[in-house]
Amino acid sequence: MRIAFFGDVVGKSGREGLCDALPDLRKQLQLDFVVVNAENAAGGFGITEKTANEMYDAGADVLTLGNHAWDQSETLSHIEREPRLLRPVNYREGTAPGRGAGLYDLPDGRRVLVMNVMLRLFMQPLEDPFASVSHEIDSCPLGAVADAIIVDMHGEATSEKVALGNYCDGRASLVVGTHTHVPTADHRILPKGTAYQTDAGMCGDYDSVIGMVKDEPINRFVTHMRSGRFTPASGEATVCGLYVETDDATGLAVRCEPIRVGGQLAEIIPEV
Amino acid sequence: MRIAFFGDVVGKSGREGLCDALPDLRKQLQLDFVVVNAENAAGGFGITEKTANEMYDAGADVLTLGNHAWDQSETLSHIEREPRLLRPVNYREGTAPGRGAGLYDLPDGRRVLVMNVMLRLFMQPLEDPFASVSHEIDSCPLGAVADAIIVDMHGEATSEKVALGNYCDGRASLVVGTHTHVPTADHRILPKGTAYQTDAGMCGDYDSVIGMVKDEPINRFVTHMRSGRFTPASGEATVCGLYVETDDATGLAVRCEPIRVGGQLAEIIPEV
Amino acid sequence: MRIAFFGDVVGKSGREGLCDALPDLRKQLQLDFVVVNAENAAGGFGITEKTANEMYDAGADVLTLGNHAWDQSETLSHIEREPRLLRPVNYREGTAPGRGAGLYDLPDGRRVLVMNVMLRLFMQPLEDPFASVSHEIDSCPLGAVADAIIVDMHGEATSEKVALGNYCDGRASLVVGTHTHVPTADHRILPKGTAYQTDAGMCGDYDSVIGMVKDEPINRFVTHMRSGRFTPASGEATVCGLYVETDDATGLAVRCEPIRVGGQLAEIIPEV
Amino acid sequence: MRIAFFGDVVGKSGREGLCDALPDLRKQLQLDFVVVNAENAAGGFGITEKTANEMYDAGADVLTLGNHAWDQSETLSHIEREPRLLRPVNYREGTAPGRGAGLYDLPDGRRVLVMNVMLRLFMQPLEDPFASVSHEIDSCPLGAVADAIIVDMHGEATSEKVALGNYCDGRASLVVGTHTHVPTADHRILPKGTAYQTDAGMCGDYDSVIGMVKDEPINRFVTHMRSGRFTPASGEATVCGLYVETDDATGLAVRCEPIRVGGQLAEIIPEV
Ligand SMILES: [Fe+2]
Ligand SMILES: [Fe+2]
Ligand SMILES: [Fe+2]
Ligand SMILES: [Fe+2]
Ligand SMILES: [Fe+2]
Ligand SMILES: [Fe+2]
Ligand SMILES: [Fe+2]
Ligand SMILES: [Fe+2]
Repeated sequence: MRIAFFGDVVGKSGREGLCDALPDLRKQLQLDFVVVNAENAAGGFGITEKTANEMYDAGADVLTLGNHAWDQSETLSHIEREPRLLRPVNYREGTAPGRGAGLYDLPDGRRVLVMNVMLRLFMQPLEDPFASVSHEIDSCPLGAVADAIIVDMHGEATSEKVALGNYCDGRASLVVGTHTHVPTADHRILPKGTAYQTDAGMCGDYDSVIGMVKDEPINRFVTHMRSGRFTPASGEATVCGLYVETDDATGLAVRCEPIRVGGQLAEIIPEV
Repeated sequence: MRIAFFGDVVGKSGREGLCDALPDLRKQLQLDFVVVNAENAAGGFGITEKTANEMYDAGADVLTLGNHAWDQSETLSHIEREPRLLRPVNYREGTAPGRGAGLYDLPDGRRVLVMNVMLRLFMQPLEDPFASVSHEIDSCPLGAVADAIIVDMHGEATSEKVALGNYCDGRASLVVGTHTHVPTADHRILPKGTAYQTDAGMCGDYDSVIGMVKDEPINRFVTHMRSGRFTPASGEATVCGLYVETDDATGLAVRCEPIRVGGQLAEIIPEV
Repeated sequence: MRIAFFGDVVGKSGREGLCDALPDLRKQLQLDFVVVNAENAAGGFGITEKTANEMYDAGADVLTLGNHAWDQSETLSHIEREPRLLRPVNYREGTAPGRGAGLYDLPDGRRVLVMNVMLRLFMQPLEDPFASVSHEIDSCPLGAVADAIIVDMHGEATSEKVALGNYCDGRASLVVGTHTHVPTADHRILPKGTAYQTDAGMCGDYDSVIGMVKDEPINRFVTHMRSGRFTPASGEATVCGLYVETDDATGLAVRCEPIRVGGQLAEIIPEV
Repeated sequence: MRIAFFGDVVGKSGREGLCDALPDLRKQLQLDFVVVNAENAAGGFGITEKTANEMYDAGADVLTLGNHAWDQSETLSHIEREPRLLRPVNYREGTAPGRGAGLYDLPDGRRVLVMNVMLRLFMQPLEDPFASVSHEIDSCPLGAVADAIIVDMHGEATSEKVALGNYCDGRASLVVGTHTHVPTADHRILPKGTAYQTDAGMCGDYDSVIGMVKDEPINRFVTHMRSGRFTPASGEATVCGLYVETDDATGLAVRCEPIRVGGQLAEIIPEV
């Protein structure tokens, strides 16, 4: 199976970058399935039904979220009727609307399990991400029920991300991080066959502080005072993601390469 | 000027990887100056005089540290007599031995200012890194006193790193992050001419949890109990760093590319 | 000198409790000087000119703030023209309006130095509170320039508070904590003569979660979701503070006792 | 039932203070049941079988722990054979030895449920303390199975402690905090009948930084460098705790008063 995963879409620049690039990338890379982290799609904070639909229309199969899941209050109801939108799976049962994992059918009958999970180091203490992810995978094992399993781990600390990746090694097709808004260059296939990258990076304008116009974030670090709001930077986005090819016999990865298109960062597109 | 910077050297694997690769890289890339973050060189924790000397012998001009600076007690005296070893610059005056910034002479008379600074988000609250770095740069400005300025910002959060990089844009040759042990793929030249990468990545075995044998870190995330010590992983290192070329007229960057050699990550060496 | 210090005034309940009790307490305890932490006076978040004036009218000589200093945007200008309002002293020079320390004259000519300082453990990294407080005290030493020195340390962790108290021992009349909204029972005179209490406690309704109506804070701990705003609890306040008597010859404390009046907590008023 | 709870016993000073005072207090207050937090009993770090036995001999019925539970490696086996020793209940099943809750029989047949729980704000992310405590209480409800229920919540932040206290209101006899090593003065009976105090305070020498000789903790705050180890202060302890009387018909509290004996803090002993 040919899969692409794209990191945190930030604001209008990120949405436009993604929606412009995705149709071509789907064709060029012959993608079967596309997951996009969209927690910052709506003006940098959360997601709206309108912005979600733009991304489905451009070729996203599933959208994932993170700590910004609920920044737009409409998401509380939107997520209940939209099975393609996933919030972190490790909310205690009964506390959050929507779902954190879904099994999706491809037109040809293959099935992909996708989940979004929040890590805990320097973040909110949701339920144990290691146990939560294990539980989801065990309910729908790779090769037996799911033809591919994609884990979006939304987290800050590299140690926790690498630990979770290796904890899942051999049981998922791809474990990829989001949230830091900076792509890492450590894409690889772990020893037991799981594709891994610590962070997918954002889809947004990199001439910014992780997607926001630079002045206010710098000002806050320097003065510890607010002098305005955070607003998404509006320059051309770099669309950042990952291309993964799996072996349909096992669901494990045979190829894992970065995708970076447009904007400030060096362009790289896998050759298929 | 041709500069290379290498990220956190972890344990024996990291030292051997670096010391094997560096002589060839110095030649091949015609390097004028090499800085290495070595806070994890000695068994994963701090640095000893012996391990430092191995790296100077292999071609490192300056070694920088970070939150692990004092893990080896001998460093308290070692750093007092070794001007090529830098601890974070933002200790309050009179509190830490050694120095956090140094101006180094090349054989041809050009001079390089190097500093190591600790960031504060999710870390210890040393003195303000923005003010500290500004102060050091202003005492020895690029183009006027220093022919190149290299800032090693040792920190966790991408927002703080990108903010500091942009805060220094136009006033330094290179601002590069360390500490997360994962290389980022966002190397670029900022609008006013400063080369930037959020993290250089570690020189160490990537089949690990940020340099350590995987079992114990995973165990601690899963159980919140210790069942042993952290020990550096001993597989082949990937030597991770950055190549930067500056314009000697301005000290600003004209080229900025990643270096990754050996081990688990995809190899990349700039063509010179 | 007879001094009283009252902890974080929370919302209308806190203001009414304080303003009702203070005139009588001033008389009964023959108070020379009254300091009130008022960072939550305006609806639980920050302070307005109107709420500040209510407290000055009731007998407060100086109001101090904390991490909520700027919750009301009018404070940015209000504090510039109101010398009796103090924000944390450890903002880097030039970054925050207003002042963090003031020397106040009593009608009889005695002078009191008051400062507000933010601690850093689990809080924002303002400038070093130990150095900042030392600097302020040294500029206006006890016994020489100031007849009394009052330090309001706004912080979370008991270790940092006790450490700062002892660091100032013998150089201040009173070092008292604020911010946790819970009074501690460790009031005492430290070995070199400084009165100390880890936290003064809030002036507010204790049938609450640190001043706020209980449902929403509990809900957030249980679900990690928001279901509404924090609103100040409106039951009768317990006015919580500290009474300190100093020796005018030295400025050091000779007496240090708690004050708790009204509401849910056991009442205690020093006998004078 | 007459219950006493004592906070974190720190080192030799704390053990001696407690063991000297407890026999008399048991008689004088006619105590039926005594719980002691002992996570710092052995030289300030953890507990040994020897130090535990001293406290059982002096009259402690149950000892609780906290984040220092495993500082002494012998505790891993000690706790398996000692039903009177409780570690935090909210370790995921199968991860930690021993138990976090126990039902204890009084000689007269009444039964007391005791549990120790770790909170999460500014601490390790164990399992959800709200859910864990609820689960334990529901398995052994007050009035039905247990004649009294005592919850030792080991935590840093006052907000989380007050929230958990109120969350349990009416379902436990006593919810009391530990860990900060400073007694709070907010002891009270919550609206539905649960006795509550944010922190019991330590049993230890208060002429210290939360139990440790002052120099090194102050030095670390001032310099961010280590210059030695933390050692328990050896002056006379203040024994800090709480006296609670319950109604045997309901298990709810009818009286809740502080106990403070010896050392630096003002003495207070309930009259019975
Ligand atoms: Fe995020
Ligand atoms: Fe994001
Ligand atoms: Fe580090
Ligand atoms: Fe490191
Ligand atoms: Fe506060
Ligand atoms: Fe407050
Ligand atoms: Fe503790
Ligand atoms: Fe403790």
